[in-house]
Amino acid sequence: MKISYILGVCALSATVMFGASSLMQKAKQNGLKPIPNSEFELLKIIDDPKDPITEAKVRLGKQLYFDPRLSKSGLISCNTCHNLGLGGVDGVPVAIGNQWTPNPHHLNSPTVYNSVFFSAQFWDGRSPHLADQAKGPTLAAPEMAATPKFIEKVVNSIPAYVKEFKYAYGDNVKINFDKITSTIAIFEKTLVTPSRYDDYLNGDENALSKAEKEGLKTFIDKGCASCHNGIALGGTMQPFQVAGKYKFANVGDFKGDKNGMVKTPTLRNITETAPYYHNGMVWSLKDAIKMMGSIQLGIKISDKDAEKIKTFFKALKGRKPDISYPQLPESTDKTPRPKD
Amino acid sequence: MKISYILGVCALSATVMFGASSLMQKAKQNGLKPIPNSEFELLKIIDDPKDPITEAKVRLGKQLYFDPRLSKSGLISCNTCHNLGLGGVDGVPVAIGNQWTPNPHHLNSPTVYNSVFFSAQFWDGRSPHLADQAKGPTLAAPEMAATPKFIEKVVNSIPAYVKEFKYAYGDNVKINFDKITSTIAIFEKTLVTPSRYDDYLNGDENALSKAEKEGLKTFIDKGCASCHNGIALGGTMQPFQVAGKYKFANVGDFKGDKNGMVKTPTLRNITETAPYYHNGMVWSLKDAIKMMGSIQLGIKISDKDAEKIKTFFKALKGRKPDISYPQLPESTDKTPRPKD
Repeated sequence: MKISYILGVCALSATVMFGASSLMQKAKQNGLKPIPNSEFELLKIIDDPKDPITEAKVRLGKQLYFDPRLSKSGLISCNTCHNLGLGGVDGVPVAIGNQWTPNPHHLNSPTVYNSVFFSAQFWDGRSPHLADQAKGPTLAAPEMAATPKFIEKVVNSIPAYVKEFKYAYGDNVKINFDKITSTIAIFEKTLVTPSRYDDYLNGDENALSKAEKEGLKTFIDKGCASCHNGIALGGTMQPFQVAGKYKFANVGDFKGDKNGMVKTPTLRNITETAPYYHNGMVWSLKDAIKMMGSIQLGIKISDKDAEKIKTFFKALKGRKPDISYPQLPESTDKTPRPKD
Repeated sequence: MKISYILGVCALSATVMFGASSLMQKAKQNGLKPIPNSEFELLKIIDDPKDPITEAKVRLGKQLYFDPRLSKSGLISCNTCHNLGLGGVDGVPVAIGNQWTPNPHHLNSPTVYNSVFFSAQFWDGRSPHLADQAKGPTLAAPEMAATPKFIEKVVNSIPAYVKEFKYAYGDNVKINFDKITSTIAIFEKTLVTPSRYDDYLNGDENALSKAEKEGLKTFIDKGCASCHNGIALGGTMQPFQVAGKYKFANVGDFKGDKNGMVKTPTLRNITETAPYYHNGMVWSLKDAIKMMGSIQLGIKISDKDAEKIKTFFKALKGRKPDISYPQLPESTDKTPRPKD
């Protein structure tokens, strides 16, 4: 269901090919890439033939994604901070986890939507892909605060989960922490949101309004695409504070990776993912755009130009997958109890 | 979609009418009632002609039910404690709310599924219906910790919500706290879960196995149906500790309403809603059954009989409505920010 769904969405976005306009060409020359509208082209990007996306794994991964029993308290699931109804984020400046603990580095929860297109995960890019990323929050004390052993016990104590893992991976599957988190990642890979912007880059000249095209042009002309490029319009490691100081740099102690590089956030669904920046200190999208001009590009972006870019950003709001809320299988007497 | 869905479920449970067996008759004589398999009969129970269930209200109510922005912190929704994927509960002994505060009376979150059939809401029955009930947790400091004004501001600041309210109730609708919570309640009314037990009481002699019928018979013979009756198998106010003392009576300070009466929990989906009792101190369903024998009925329920009753309880696991996870409309600059 899930697979045909994603692909269905892409099929919907398949459009008549018009002659590519000069703006369309310019966008591509500047590294901007659409989510492909060919099912096969998309699969080639998100799928891994060694552990292919299957209906069974997506279904199971979705249950695990929504299951708060994977957390120490029994109250926090992946969806708590990466809420699929709220643009894939929690909408608060700082991630709040186990025992209401804020992220100790004052870091903001990034969106899970389209994260499959990132070349690095986490703000400091320390993780190469989603299967690895998913291990972080489940174990982090200020997040889900579990241990691999606890999570393995929970899942293995629930017969319906065991049955589903066997169905998905074969009877000899070892249902360990690696397998559990990689299954969550397979669900996350399907969280792709094609937008009118993609329809445009895929050849439908009419998918964007005149004002949105003007915004896209301004976005490119100002240099924003030098970091916000690729399919994700972000998701790669880039230097931060290249041209100026971030006003809230001292909120939290995050300084990027060992070279001071920071993962560029995706701009997809950006109108839904306030507040902005790694420490969630900026609520206004327009302010965020203007600040990036001075911090990263060393230019002043006028109010008018910031509005134009914001207008373009609205076209990045994607069509979300239709997610049925999963019924989670019952705990048993062997299921470890939540700990407050 | 939602309406036709509930009704669809009931239609699915429509079965060939067999001659009513003596157990079936006995169950009815003891006050046990099925969820009707007639669409119209169900509507007559759950609907209110003065504020009828409509597609638009259910859709909107579902969004509000899942929207954490109705809480002070922006992190807690109705679904946090009444998780529709976990039998309508949170699976922990004590409800945990704003700032990780446990319920000050050490009260356990009751299930929202089938709560439309209760004659009283909350453990002390202080609320007559769901529209009134929904006001409690949104405002309670240890739960969602909001104020009516805050919630009204949030909803009115989001144009898509305003549009949906106008569509659902007419252009002159006043989107106030009452209207918001009664809309949530309309969604909750649809959370009805017909089970094989209903199919049986609706006339399908084969819907229950021999062991389940034996369990139902034991349940009635032991006197359990004297409190756990009606459609909800509970949901009415009853005296507590009639025949003996509850082992964990001193955990928390809850003593029932002013007459010491306590709302009987529903037994529907009971295998999914551990831990049990008002203070969530009992994890084992079998123990819970045996304890009720001594506390309420003044009898010793043997291990064997408790197992039989438990076997019957498994047949109370209902068919859950298929809930698509709602995409929540975007906040705006006017939306009050969450407060940690």
